[in-house]
Amino acid sequence: MRILSGGSAMTTSISGRSVDDLLPPFLRHGAIAYMKGGSLFIRDRRRLPLEIVDVECRSTEEAAAAIKAMVTQGGGPLEAALLSLLLASRRGEDLERAASLLSAARPTNSTMRRTLAAVLRDIKGGKDPEEAVSEAFAYYDALYDAISDIGESLIEDGDGILTRCFPEHTFMLSVRKAKEKGKDVKVFVPETRPYLQGAKLTEPSLRAMGIECYLITDGMGAHYMAEGRVQKFMTASDLALSDRTVVNKTGTLSDAIAARWHGIPYYAFSLSIDKEASREGIVLEERDGWGEKGYGSKMLYPLFDVIPSELVTGIITKEGII
Amino acid sequence: MRILSGGSAMTTSISGRSVDDLLPPFLRHGAIAYMKGGSLFIRDRRRLPLEIVDVECRSTEEAAAAIKAMVTQGGGPLEAALLSLLLASRRGEDLERAASLLSAARPTNSTMRRTLAAVLRDIKGGKDPEEAVSEAFAYYDALYDAISDIGESLIEDGDGILTRCFPEHTFMLSVRKAKEKGKDVKVFVPETRPYLQGAKLTEPSLRAMGIECYLITDGMGAHYMAEGRVQKFMTASDLALSDRTVVNKTGTLSDAIAARWHGIPYYAFSLSIDKEASREGIVLEERDGWGEKGYGSKMLYPLFDVIPSELVTGIITKEGII
Repeated sequence: MRILSGGSAMTTSISGRSVDDLLPPFLRHGAIAYMKGGSLFIRDRRRLPLEIVDVECRSTEEAAAAIKAMVTQGGGPLEAALLSLLLASRRGEDLERAASLLSAARPTNSTMRRTLAAVLRDIKGGKDPEEAVSEAFAYYDALYDAISDIGESLIEDGDGILTRCFPEHTFMLSVRKAKEKGKDVKVFVPETRPYLQGAKLTEPSLRAMGIECYLITDGMGAHYMAEGRVQKFMTASDLALSDRTVVNKTGTLSDAIAARWHGIPYYAFSLSIDKEASREGIVLEERDGWGEKGYGSKMLYPLFDVIPSELVTGIITKEGII
Repeated sequence: MRILSGGSAMTTSISGRSVDDLLPPFLRHGAIAYMKGGSLFIRDRRRLPLEIVDVECRSTEEAAAAIKAMVTQGGGPLEAALLSLLLASRRGEDLERAASLLSAARPTNSTMRRTLAAVLRDIKGGKDPEEAVSEAFAYYDALYDAISDIGESLIEDGDGILTRCFPEHTFMLSVRKAKEKGKDVKVFVPETRPYLQGAKLTEPSLRAMGIECYLITDGMGAHYMAEGRVQKFMTASDLALSDRTVVNKTGTLSDAIAARWHGIPYYAFSLSIDKEASREGIVLEERDGWGEKGYGSKMLYPLFDVIPSELVTGIITKEGII
């Protein structure tokens, strides 16, 4: 069982090591979610990096509930849901229903929904479930590998890179590959309030890979651009449209405007361009509070910024830079 | 003793109330620092708004140490130092030495140093120390009043105003006067990491004055500009040069660039333009850590941004808008 052992079928051009070997430890397969004794265990990202707590899910319902409760985030739900579907198949459950339960746990995560549907089609078409899920994992490893080859090619020796929130596999692999090729690279990481994904996930991940990095507060990006210490602005994207509009964590717009002002290119990574979505159709979720102790203030929390195409130098996809 | 009772000699055009009456409670004279039983008490701004703790200083040395330890900030050191000088005079101390001790406690605070020197000159010239200090307080009340009249005139009915850090008397009075004149005004307050002056001081001050305000995180200003909910960007300034360059809390540059991108004017309040300083001569202090529990990361903390004149619509001074 390659999935259980956390290995990857794909090898990269970097010293013959797999994508998984190059990633920071907590993004590796077995460290996001794993199967043990018939249960699915999902690592609780809300408590990283100070605590390692794996949430046990004994049924598909429990897995869906954990995904809904944000136990894992970003690319995590995809891995957890694939393993949950595999366990459902081992238990002889109705897979259609299992996939539907898991997809409904994170309705905005179209990558997870599309992947579960594709695996289900394969299984219905006669493919062994273990094989179908393995192939899905291998597909994403290959995708991360291809996209990060392009990301790496954009990084120049001596670059200071500003990022935002937690840009996961594609950005991490790009920076890691640049370092492995001997490029001197430094990353400026905004802490990303209110939930501190930058401080809790991005900065420790970079540090675990041996990348020189600095934690800054959310409004400091422009300061280091003005000082000439930032040469690239690179983020993931929660949604990327074919007209080059990017949707990403709030704060990205502010830094994208500052990058433009300073003549610094902004690149967003995307696993797939959403060809059906339009800029007019983007409905942005706004939450009232920050889920933490306040002083009785009215707190606004818009989850995402829309970054208009004129501020986006390029979207990095497996097909190249759009 | 007008100083002790917290009253002000100046009345404004607003319903005949003094500047002090219009200010949020914790910016009023007796709430920043006060004299009691021969001691100076300074309200500890580091613990506001959740705790009201007044630090007792029984000597000029203790007052200087408290100012140095950042017990009070912004315009607070000026008031505390003036009262400390008055107590030194009552105790028959060498006032030259007392003023020098107090000035050295915050070497970058040129307003405090200049005011102490002026009061000292008055006393040497034969003026009663009580009177000299009273006049200094009245001078600043009149200054705040004049500057905030200009600030008020820039605020239009229905404006959403973004600010940054804790913009103190001049901004608070401008917004308060606009509201008293019946203008509908809303303020967006970035929490201002790492020390949360926005969350701890600005937002509670505005709320205490009955101003509609929203607490946001530091990277969100551009988001609300893009949504059309911000019509002005207004901050204090730690330093303003005659070429219209502004130095203010980090994060100001980011919002000033975003304001320019969205066609929104940026105004900075200044008690006095520093005519001697030049842009080339500005030495920015950078602190290593944030003074709080981290995850072992390298944290950068540049205290101030330099906002180039091309991003500054105007500096609001008592002489008018520069």
